Amino acid sequence: MAESMKGLHRTHRCTEVSNKNIGETVTVMGWVQKSRNKGGIVFTDLRDRSGLLQIIFEEGSISSEVFERAGRLRSEFVIAVTGKVESRSGATNENLVTGDIEIRAKELRVLSEADTPPFPIEEASKTKEELRLKYRYLDLRRPDLQKNLIMRSKVATLTRQFLSEEGFLEIETPMLNKSTPEGARDYLVPSRVHPGNFYALPQSPQIFKQLLMCSGYDRYFQIAKCFRDEDLRADRQPEFTQIDMELSFVEIEDILDVNERLLQKLFKEVLGVEIQTPIQRMTYKEAMDRFGSDKPDLRFGMELKNVSEIVKDTEFAVFKGALENGGSIRGINAAGQADMPRKKIDALVDFAKGYGAKGLAYLAINEDGTYKSSFAKFMTEEELKALVSAMEGKPGDLLFFAADKDKIVYNVLGALRIEIADKLELLKKDDYHFLWVTEFPLLEWSEEEERFTAMHHPFTMPMEEDLHLLSTDPGKVRAKAYDIVLNGTELGGGSLRIYQNDIQEKMFEVLGFTKEDAYERFGFLLNAFKYGVPPHGGLAFGLDRLIMLMAKEDSIRDVIAFPKVKDASCLMTEAPNVVDAKQLDELGIGINNNLNL
Amino acid sequence: MAESMKGLHRTHRCTEVSNKNIGETVTVMGWVQKSRNKGGIVFTDLRDRSGLLQIIFEEGSISSEVFERAGRLRSEFVIAVTGKVESRSGATNENLVTGDIEIRAKELRVLSEADTPPFPIEEASKTKEELRLKYRYLDLRRPDLQKNLIMRSKVATLTRQFLSEEGFLEIETPMLNKSTPEGARDYLVPSRVHPGNFYALPQSPQIFKQLLMCSGYDRYFQIAKCFRDEDLRADRQPEFTQIDMELSFVEIEDILDVNERLLQKLFKEVLGVEIQTPIQRMTYKEAMDRFGSDKPDLRFGMELKNVSEIVKDTEFAVFKGALENGGSIRGINAAGQADMPRKKIDALVDFAKGYGAKGLAYLAINEDGTYKSSFAKFMTEEELKALVSAMEGKPGDLLFFAADKDKIVYNVLGALRIEIADKLELLKKDDYHFLWVTEFPLLEWSEEEERFTAMHHPFTMPMEEDLHLLSTDPGKVRAKAYDIVLNGTELGGGSLRIYQNDIQEKMFEVLGFTKEDAYERFGFLLNAFKYGVPPHGGLAFGLDRLIMLMAKEDSIRDVIAFPKVKDASCLMTEAPNVVDAKQLDELGIGINNNLNL
Repeated sequence: MAESMKGLHRTHRCTEVSNKNIGETVTVMGWVQKSRNKGGIVFTDLRDRSGLLQIIFEEGSISSEVFERAGRLRSEFVIAVTGKVESRSGATNENLVTGDIEIRAKELRVLSEADTPPFPIEEASKTKEELRLKYRYLDLRRPDLQKNLIMRSKVATLTRQFLSEEGFLEIETPMLNKSTPEGARDYLVPSRVHPGNFYALPQSPQIFKQLLMCSGYDRYFQIAKCFRDEDLRADRQPEFTQIDMELSFVEIEDILDVNERLLQKLFKEVLGVEIQTPIQRMTYKEAMDRFGSDKPDLRFGMELKNVSEIVKDTEFAVFKGALENGGSIRGINAAGQADMPRKKIDALVDFAKGYGAKGLAYLAINEDGTYKSSFAKFMTEEELKALVSAMEGKPGDLLFFAADKDKIVYNVLGALRIEIADKLELLKKDDYHFLWVTEFPLLEWSEEEERFTAMHHPFTMPMEEDLHLLSTDPGKVRAKAYDIVLNGTELGGGSLRIYQNDIQEKMFEVLGFTKEDAYERFGFLLNAFKYGVPPHGGLAFGLDRLIMLMAKEDSIRDVIAFPKVKDASCLMTEAPNVVDAKQLDELGIGINNNLNL
Repeated sequence: MAESMKGLHRTHRCTEVSNKNIGETVTVMGWVQKSRNKGGIVFTDLRDRSGLLQIIFEEGSISSEVFERAGRLRSEFVIAVTGKVESRSGATNENLVTGDIEIRAKELRVLSEADTPPFPIEEASKTKEELRLKYRYLDLRRPDLQKNLIMRSKVATLTRQFLSEEGFLEIETPMLNKSTPEGARDYLVPSRVHPGNFYALPQSPQIFKQLLMCSGYDRYFQIAKCFRDEDLRADRQPEFTQIDMELSFVEIEDILDVNERLLQKLFKEVLGVEIQTPIQRMTYKEAMDRFGSDKPDLRFGMELKNVSEIVKDTEFAVFKGALENGGSIRGINAAGQADMPRKKIDALVDFAKGYGAKGLAYLAINEDGTYKSSFAKFMTEEELKALVSAMEGKPGDLLFFAADKDKIVYNVLGALRIEIADKLELLKKDDYHFLWVTEFPLLEWSEEEERFTAMHHPFTMPMEEDLHLLSTDPGKVRAKAYDIVLNGTELGGGSLRIYQNDIQEKMFEVLGFTKEDAYERFGFLLNAFKYGVPPHGGLAFGLDRLIMLMAKEDSIRDVIAFPKVKDASCLMTEAPNVVDAKQLDELGIGINNNLNL
């Protein structure tokens, strides 16, 4: 039975009651965490979003009807209780904020009864994620998910507050847009009024925010929903949220500065963590050379070393071949790991192969100075010594080497470095290492399309000192682009934008767009640029990833209220679903027959 | 040519410079509003989002190269100027914040040249809206649009701040949802991973916010994008923005109270307008009886009067017929309008016909007490006298009467009342009259579907005193629902929700849903309700309309950065558009052949 709360007024949330209220009569409402009768007293733990509070119903001191009803309380019943705040009669519960008090109930209303939930509502749930997602409305009752969503709300609020104070305007950009097939796959929306035509959901507000700069809004931001119809990974969702911003009349330093202060504020006020500014900076080239990654995890060392020069005269076929093919040999030093069992080393070799390596050479330096190695027999003692010395190898260390084209070597050792650190438990989640990676390549060669594509997007400004290379050696042009990296995760990125028509046209030319192509896709932006455009640039943070790291979670699904799973479906609502034929008729579309539905 | 701003740092926005800075050297950047050479001095008005600032370039006192470049400046060029702040040499310009100062320029960089825009960038533009929307990026430079969007940003910021302080959490709900064909038409999104299946864009976060209450989040809000694929009117857009909220453990008073305080804060801080609280309340029935509308405009009187009783014995066929058909005769008094020319009266009769009236009876009371009337000849002197007296008619007044079924009479007179007030210029935009309309009918009869449909939505709580009518006379059941009305516009609405499974099932039954139907559509919500649900309710404001009224605009397009037009297209981006066949193939959909594209 569901009673009404008519005439009742909640006076406190559970943990808003404290020993300062002793003697007062309060009314609290929430869910029964658990309830048990112990010798004529019913002890009920009441839960709301603030936490837990103990209620006692004592036989004799309340009406027998109330006591009887209290005896029937079960987990997840929703109740309203009026009673007096008292010091806890039993031992203080140190685990609870309200552990030194209890409410001696006088009145009880059962606002809603509850079936037994399919899994317990508790922290650090052991329940399979699939079941939790199906019953997300119950999963969301768990204190750890509540903590995450409360943190998310706080981060959004602080972000808005900070950016408003810095002169940013929050301006909404449209969701129903034109499809511009450059970059990821668009989600399309059929038009009923214009049958055969489609809107696209935004992959980002990129073009609109640049238009707003052309329109003189000076500083824009938005916490914006974005969409990409790509195959999902653990840190991807079909819809995700960006803290998106754009600034006029600025250079790179201005953008980095305001964002460093934003991060500083968020980490300070939400986590109590001090971020030192300026945040460390590193060029893309240096990041690749030292860490084999454009988003290096700086929580530990184990840097890559290029030993190509050391072994350039070796007869070891693997090394020799790599060098002959224009590649390199690089290594990392897993210090103190010389006694890693062969089985684990083999697992790492397999891991490396997953990243494109043909193999992985290793060399363990025994405590007595001798080597145990997969390739020592192919090299001279002198070569080995030089190699170990270049790697700063000491007795007890374990060295790994990859030999291949640079791209593969970086990829393999960059991933191996993280894998080893993870196995060695070097990746502490409360150890925050920020990094700006700068001077990204402007373009990357697409083997698939046999043309250069924009690494960031086609509006990214090239570095002035590389402008002359646009015609002669486009792959070498660096961009005024930057990523913000936290503990090996790319949190966000941005760039200065091209605001000169001639450079923009050149850029489209390099990308292989005809002028017609370019106007077909981005005509309104190119037209806007004819009427006076300020120098501008911006940045976007992935809010989901930022909260994931702040909440020390491994999946962004744990910081999104209603996430989707790998196949982009929602286990709770069962979206997407089949719709009425009438709806499709109105849109002028049909489902292809060959689908065999 | 586009010069770089390298090495330059903007020190102020235009109107941040004041006479307190006299003697200082500043660097300002922005757009040239206008520029003219007057006797060896180039006067340039520089514009940014803050306003205008006068720059002077004096021949002789600066390098001839800078002076020459200044001479070439044209409207909308983007420039950076460094110079000294001085008292204005000419007369003070009272219209400008910076009217008593000017910048004596030393340096000038032209950051971007500009073509002549297709229309002037000025307030109160006379340019056709179509052209303005095509070049929205230029239209958005106009100070009045900038003012509106800055106000919008401020309202959103204040709303978030207020609701956060009141214990609300901002929680994002998904955009890619399940289609539930109840209410307006959904925008659909084809799924690539599940061909033949579709997501729907949310018409509102209704179900998700109720789930969040089930999950214990206690107070939720979101400034949420919502979508309805309906034919557009002046105050509708395919995508629109709601201030959406939901609260647990509350009764109606709690919800109204927090929203009154929100509105009070917004109007005070943004417009300097004091709203008196509590805001006036009126039942739906009273609103219809007195104003013929469920969103009465209280800026003026001209209330409806039911004169059925007065004329119940008349032989006048129109009145007699209406009464015989179970209808009523009601009138309004356009005080002082007795001398309205016949042509204008005829126009009002036509206007009434547009709202379903078969005709409109009128009676003018001449200054000498005689009548001029369309129906006086059908009635006795006594009847007319009684009628005039009931309408509180005085010499000089003009009375209008509608006779029909109640629904039509309300519709006609409600609209006529506004039309007359508009013609008489009684609708002052800075005169804000708020009203809560309460006790809405729970259901309305749909002639088309031959069943009751939910007036609000199927989760709206019936009033307890009417619960027994659900089975016997559902049309009479009143709901715990309320709308907030401002000056005749519905700003928002909400309700307490059903949290009892038995009432919810009854509700679905009345709506003609089988249990299977109900579970097919809302199963996850109904399931959630099994596990303990708190009493809850909420409200949603139309943000676009709120800003429109606050900005004293007539169209929501003037408070949306990139609005769509009547056919749901965007004149700037030309969305929706035709997409590649490959994109459709991947989605497993085709365009119906009979479209003849």
